[in-house]
Amino acid sequence: MFYIIGLGLCDEKDITIRGLEAVKGSSRVYLEAYTSILMIQKERLEAFYGKELIIADRDMVETESDEILRDADKEDVSLLVVGDPYGATTHTDIVLRARALGVSTRIIHNASIMNAVGACGLQLYNFGQTVSLVFFTETWKPDSFYDRVQDNAALGMHTLVLLDIKVKEQSEENLARGRKIYEPPRYMSITQAVSQLAEVEASRGAGVLTPDRTLAIALSRVGGGSEERIVAGSLAELAAQPPETFGQPLHSLVIVGRRLHHLEVEYAEGFAVNKATWRDVASKVYGCALDG
Amino acid sequence: MFYIIGLGLCDEKDITIRGLEAVKGSSRVYLEAYTSILMIQKERLEAFYGKELIIADRDMVETESDEILRDADKEDVSLLVVGDPYGATTHTDIVLRARALGVSTRIIHNASIMNAVGACGLQLYNFGQTVSLVFFTETWKPDSFYDRVQDNAALGMHTLVLLDIKVKEQSEENLARGRKIYEPPRYMSITQAVSQLAEVEASRGAGVLTPDRTLAIALSRVGGGSEERIVAGSLAELAAQPPETFGQPLHSLVIVGRRLHHLEVEYAEGFAVNKATWRDVASKVYGCALDG
Repeated sequence: MFYIIGLGLCDEKDITIRGLEAVKGSSRVYLEAYTSILMIQKERLEAFYGKELIIADRDMVETESDEILRDADKEDVSLLVVGDPYGATTHTDIVLRARALGVSTRIIHNASIMNAVGACGLQLYNFGQTVSLVFFTETWKPDSFYDRVQDNAALGMHTLVLLDIKVKEQSEENLARGRKIYEPPRYMSITQAVSQLAEVEASRGAGVLTPDRTLAIALSRVGGGSEERIVAGSLAELAAQPPETFGQPLHSLVIVGRRLHHLEVEYAEGFAVNKATWRDVASKVYGCALDG
Repeated sequence: MFYIIGLGLCDEKDITIRGLEAVKGSSRVYLEAYTSILMIQKERLEAFYGKELIIADRDMVETESDEILRDADKEDVSLLVVGDPYGATTHTDIVLRARALGVSTRIIHNASIMNAVGACGLQLYNFGQTVSLVFFTETWKPDSFYDRVQDNAALGMHTLVLLDIKVKEQSEENLARGRKIYEPPRYMSITQAVSQLAEVEASRGAGVLTPDRTLAIALSRVGGGSEERIVAGSLAELAAQPPETFGQPLHSLVIVGRRLHHLEVEYAEGFAVNKATWRDVASKVYGCALDG
């Protein structure tokens, strides 16, 4: 059996009992590299599982799937991934390859930001399509996400914005010289994300992301106990916060849509930079009927 | 500490290590009643945890939250819920109440249908707002979901349709006589859902849910190993299947939107009632470029 096992959001204790049993019964256990670079250290996982882990970067998962799947028709092999196996990165290719090889696959689900985003207090029902925001460069500022946020906003829906991660980047010089030397991983922060949103709003100008009139909620390390940060405010308020307000990466951002229930406003108020302005924008701009 | 712990999708082994530790350390453990009526039997959970569970129906969670939260400032109390605590049912009220009482709350996340729906092979990115389909009666056939599916469809997005569950229903006679006798729980099946969709399409006529030209994917017991069923086809094909094709409840349904990648079609083809018609509709009606 080939298992793809979601590790959940934070650390070694977020795996399910079913997942842990599969790991313990597997003859080889791969750890998707994104994972180890994020919040969970490989060594900590190995100690917890009592198993050695083989790092599999994205290239390996995509191009060397036959090695990962080797003998999985006769014994158990596991691939560990952060969040859920069907989160932002699906594992379609390797599952299709397993199918072609006649290897049975079992997915062991877990929380991912796609459902745990509910922690911000907004109803998951009212989220539209999810978008990604990539690191802008001097010459490359892809802004097609803006159209999608606008589509969601037109329907009153919230938008989950996933922020870019760069791992295994090469400098131009190293790339040119063919040196496999990689830059340290980079994670987009809320501060940078909000700044990029302002830049796109300035160029596109449809009023989808206005600093004082658009509410947003920043999330980091959801489910991570004392490391979790949820911060709500207008885009302008979020932009004005010192970076440490938002805690450690990964960060995600929710753009709040008009379809707001007063309980959602009240719930998220507990995370607000400024409760008064939060309520004020929710009632006056968003038209949400609030008490008092 | 007050813990709200997601149990995940299927059985006692879907809880996380973190969740299990919280259960074991709690002086009282409540089980939201929906849970026990679904796939996980209370006794099986109790045996696994080595703890007695107190059944809390929705009424109790909503109206007797102070009893659930009693002493949670001094000791640990847990509330177990199916899926993720922020799934279809959020627990906003009780968390707000805990906040008002000065009780710290910790959410322990898990998979829910809101993210595990990715198992059908479609990208979570491309889902729009989620809708619910309730049991129609002779006189009450609420169809506002149709507008939302149409909104999603206009943007090319997929729609997750959550199917109704009726628990603790009273017959009209028992209700009139004030007898607290409840009917057995009912879960809407794919067969009934597809029939109701056809009824609404017939009355609304916007072509959002045409039997032969709309693709859909039925899911049940996602993550449940041999009990999991994923069945793909046109609405007409799903309507023609014998009910047992779709397995045990809960059932959910995905209406496929136009924004389809060929890998998604290929992946879901593995679940298709008829591979040829699946590919045919995907390419000719949906306009997805497929090989061969």
